[in-house]
Amino acid sequence: MDFQSCFPVWNQLSAAQQERILGSLSERSVKKGALLHNGGADCTGLLVVRSGQLRAYILSEEGREITIYRLFDRDICLFSASCVMRSVQFDVTVAAEKDTDLWVIPAEVYRQLMEESAPLANYTNELMAGRFSEVMWLVEQVMWRSMDQRIASFLLEEAAIEGTNRLAITHETIANHLGTHREVVTRMLRYFRSEGMVELSRGVVELTDEAKLKALQRA
Amino acid sequence: MDFQSCFPVWNQLSAAQQERILGSLSERSVKKGALLHNGGADCTGLLVVRSGQLRAYILSEEGREITIYRLFDRDICLFSASCVMRSVQFDVTVAAEKDTDLWVIPAEVYRQLMEESAPLANYTNELMAGRFSEVMWLVEQVMWRSMDQRIASFLLEEAAIEGTNRLAITHETIANHLGTHREVVTRMLRYFRSEGMVELSRGVVELTDEAKLKALQRA
Repeated sequence: MDFQSCFPVWNQLSAAQQERILGSLSERSVKKGALLHNGGADCTGLLVVRSGQLRAYILSEEGREITIYRLFDRDICLFSASCVMRSVQFDVTVAAEKDTDLWVIPAEVYRQLMEESAPLANYTNELMAGRFSEVMWLVEQVMWRSMDQRIASFLLEEAAIEGTNRLAITHETIANHLGTHREVVTRMLRYFRSEGMVELSRGVVELTDEAKLKALQRA
Repeated sequence: MDFQSCFPVWNQLSAAQQERILGSLSERSVKKGALLHNGGADCTGLLVVRSGQLRAYILSEEGREITIYRLFDRDICLFSASCVMRSVQFDVTVAAEKDTDLWVIPAEVYRQLMEESAPLANYTNELMAGRFSEVMWLVEQVMWRSMDQRIASFLLEEAAIEGTNRLAITHETIANHLGTHREVVTRMLRYFRSEGMVELSRGVVELTDEAKLKALQRA
């Protein structure tokens, strides 16, 4: 996969603009668990995922986490370059969930191009609107859904991402995705087990009744 | 106040572009309580508040509400024109909290101008980033703050907006701002009263110990 194919507006940039992006682009490979961006103090630049998986999350003062969105192949992480927009008043942390290859466009290069190119500025708008939609979905989940429904949704989504019903994931990790405590997840998973929806073993959650989990999610 | 002063990028638009906005602009006056935009089916257009106060909120299937942001003089409501951005996948309802005078720019006119004008597209980006920041603040409140802290924050904010410690507001309205039930608000306000932080009478909440409310908010 080449870099250009990640940018739907590539052909609407001038040759000089394309040159400036390609000339400033760097490639990076990070291992699972690597911290790529750590809040507003960092101005990491625009991250473009070549292959792998990233997770963007926020942290409470006490160190609790909640996932706000995830990034897969070809996805672009705008908020790691949030320093280019002065109205962004929140801090996002970005970490690799899998070994990941990515391209980095320096924030300042991107800012300058966005300023002169209406197609790039509009594309950035669409990127932000997409992330905004994910956060609004999160607000709705947190406000209107119960924790059992949210855990069921998370397990089903995770199984779809991984392409398997046998998930190598700890209760702690699930809690960090959903912004809750490990004990809450453990209690709920034990209830799911008693209902035949999952099997539990050390570091593994196996989905054994997807239909029942989907019914719970929709309830 | 004239319309142009609400648009910091006005002078970066061409005379023809300015003309298209002014030529398509309409003025509207609405009464307190009026519904201005009702979710994704509507393509109301960009709302620019001349004077008054609007509230943007989301609704659950059961009719519960939560305020996601509020708009005051000179503020621009982007999501009432969200039909111009295909990546916006959520529905926002916008209602007048006070009698409000506003200008409306038709969504299609705005979309066309944004497509050709980098300054306008970048300005729109900043608008969206500002709203995004407010929603992220909301996520943090909902996730990490307790309901007593959120009610204390809301009362203090409301007192600042209204310029008085005597708020004409029902428990139901507070609940709708915060996405909770009236009973929860009533219980909490009675506790605040027992602690000397508020006085309650029919349809009125009076803040009697701001310092104590602020301490609770920060706790």
